[in-house]
Amino acid sequence: MTTTATTARERMLLAKDAARSIGLLSDERKRAALLAIADAIVAAASEIEAANADDLARGRATGMATGLQDRLRLDAPRIAALAAAVRDIADLPDPVGRVLDTRTLPSGVELTKVAVPFGVVGSIYEARPNVTVDIAALALRSGNAVVLRGGTAAESTNSALVRAMRGALAEQGLDPEAIQTVDEFGREGAKDLMQARGIVDVLVPRGSAQLIETVVTESSVPVIETGAGVVHIVLDATAPLDWARDIVVNAKVQRPSVCNAVETVLVVRDAAPRVVGPVVAALQEKGVVIHGDPEIAALASDVVPATDEDWSTEYLGLEIAMRVVDDLDGALDHIRRYSTHHTESIVTEDDANAERFLAEVDSAVVMANASTRFTDGGEFGFGAEVGISTQKLHARGPMGLSELTSTKWLARGAGQVRA
Amino acid sequence: MTTTATTARERMLLAKDAARSIGLLSDERKRAALLAIADAIVAAASEIEAANADDLARGRATGMATGLQDRLRLDAPRIAALAAAVRDIADLPDPVGRVLDTRTLPSGVELTKVAVPFGVVGSIYEARPNVTVDIAALALRSGNAVVLRGGTAAESTNSALVRAMRGALAEQGLDPEAIQTVDEFGREGAKDLMQARGIVDVLVPRGSAQLIETVVTESSVPVIETGAGVVHIVLDATAPLDWARDIVVNAKVQRPSVCNAVETVLVVRDAAPRVVGPVVAALQEKGVVIHGDPEIAALASDVVPATDEDWSTEYLGLEIAMRVVDDLDGALDHIRRYSTHHTESIVTEDDANAERFLAEVDSAVVMANASTRFTDGGEFGFGAEVGISTQKLHARGPMGLSELTSTKWLARGAGQVRA
Repeated sequence: MTTTATTARERMLLAKDAARSIGLLSDERKRAALLAIADAIVAAASEIEAANADDLARGRATGMATGLQDRLRLDAPRIAALAAAVRDIADLPDPVGRVLDTRTLPSGVELTKVAVPFGVVGSIYEARPNVTVDIAALALRSGNAVVLRGGTAAESTNSALVRAMRGALAEQGLDPEAIQTVDEFGREGAKDLMQARGIVDVLVPRGSAQLIETVVTESSVPVIETGAGVVHIVLDATAPLDWARDIVVNAKVQRPSVCNAVETVLVVRDAAPRVVGPVVAALQEKGVVIHGDPEIAALASDVVPATDEDWSTEYLGLEIAMRVVDDLDGALDHIRRYSTHHTESIVTEDDANAERFLAEVDSAVVMANASTRFTDGGEFGFGAEVGISTQKLHARGPMGLSELTSTKWLARGAGQVRA
Repeated sequence: MTTTATTARERMLLAKDAARSIGLLSDERKRAALLAIADAIVAAASEIEAANADDLARGRATGMATGLQDRLRLDAPRIAALAAAVRDIADLPDPVGRVLDTRTLPSGVELTKVAVPFGVVGSIYEARPNVTVDIAALALRSGNAVVLRGGTAAESTNSALVRAMRGALAEQGLDPEAIQTVDEFGREGAKDLMQARGIVDVLVPRGSAQLIETVVTESSVPVIETGAGVVHIVLDATAPLDWARDIVVNAKVQRPSVCNAVETVLVVRDAAPRVVGPVVAALQEKGVVIHGDPEIAALASDVVPATDEDWSTEYLGLEIAMRVVDDLDGALDHIRRYSTHHTESIVTEDDANAERFLAEVDSAVVMANASTRFTDGGEFGFGAEVGISTQKLHARGPMGLSELTSTKWLARGAGQVRA
């Protein structure tokens, strides 16, 4: 399914128009559409692989980093995994139509607050073709049309994926214009998308901190800010050594490249002589480089001196910053200054300190005695994850399908007027 | 209570700092703070009246319209009403700490999603001193600090009100920096407020469509868009005449200057010969000027020919636009094109048409057989109204205190790590 629209704006208007019919679909038809999309992706696997080979060749020719090439690569197993993820989303409960509130006014007018689709969801992301399919599937499952901007590095791959998905919609008798890409319009397309207030209802950027910052700053469309995580763990005076070691190592090492991985460990001074040595040793055993302040360096070996910059660095790799603080107040001060308000955890046996930490830390997820890696839509039981919101408006923390809906008040009367 | 801060940014940072202690206050202390504010406003009445006289004199000297002068004026009864409104807000239930979700993860980690204050609420509004008190009281009741920008025309009045409110906080042993104004920094102050991302958590503009448009466009702080209402009523083929007449007259005449007043009536052609005459006559009897299309003009007398501009005009006065449409589809098309997504209502005895209208109209409040004047926080039973959101993110329709809160996930574990 190709489109006749020749500008980014025209495509977005087609998406807005398609959103009307998509928004009224039954649960069953949306589910069927997603299953058809999954099948279409598998059926188009060789076309998708060929397009992906083009993107990869272009990437190698322009010196793309090996890590980025790996994120861009789609082979048969990865394509099968994409389709499987769409089937999982198909099986999630429909978030549209949930009744969120009911009231009968004194005049007898009956009010019902229901969940409705946003309309058009936009996404700007970097060369990860899986996001193309993921966001499109999540948007459609929640009754929305979608406008994608996935970056020029993955343009051929994204185009093949979008073609397959649009074909599946048409085959199901649905409006294929509900899935749009503006990739081929380059930076202008991204700009048009960010300025499409009144056409696009919400924009979800996914990618580096810099990409998200650009979108938040330049967009007049409402944005849900996701992702960046300078995540802290505090080892309190009473932190049990085994919990401290297990939680820090798990939070750093289990998957270092993601936003819920810990980046800074703050050790309360009373605990430092007891815990710093063993925690550092356990991290170093897993290959983690320690950036520590002088007190950390005095209690462990092979510590790289931490600079001011380390406290605001999201390493996303096998590096960690460590610092000794006076007490819980010192830890809270540090977090207030450097946190990106994603996830923070305290390890403590002192219930009062745990509850104070939970109450006072201003982050999307605040934990006591658990690994920060639990901040995840899948772990929270949402079945899918749209992203992890680090803003306070609309959604905060892991977002599931219901965060891609808005609400509407329905009022049913019998001629009532206001007195 | 005066502040030592000499720039808008310094004041906002003081507000952010104050938000920490305000956010942790108990229900009882917040209630007491609001009652103290109400008392302080009454006690400062003569000072406030004097400051208001200065603003009014300046307004008259610079040719301020009489209507604006009236909105700016504060006399003893209006000051008493302001204090009474604060007492009403004091009596509302605390929106902070509500448990919105609980989950136990397979690992045994216990999750609780709770309502928390935003932190710092900003508001930009026009020369209405009542908003100064209203927004400050709503923000504090929901545990937030507040930064106000009320326009230079009301600067002296707002300053006197803010002084009284800050004094009340100090007297209660609370941080007076929780209430800030940036009025004296003029347009630069407003600009600093709109760019205070990371300091101010949400910005609520209140005033003209133009003011709201400016804030939405220029702000990097997340905005809740409120207000503008090009509100429609559809008279369907089966509309009972008495309902049609009562609802249209009530929606236009009961309080024409507000956003939930109707601006355009769409009459389905089959109903036109039966309803247009009587509805127009009833409106004209109340002094309403009718801007009608040729079909309306043919069915009634004294109809001013409608221009294209009328369809997107929010008259906010005793004027109304009327048009005949082919059928329900024609009405839906018109609404899609011209609505500001605030409130629309259909008058009909056809249940299928009513339900189709409720499902398909994309507005904050969609009604069947009721006056659009019901779209109001007070009418909905919220006890107070922060504004009426016309956007889809975070809040839609009348906003109560709970819309001034965000959420936070608390996780309580016993050393769990992710597998």
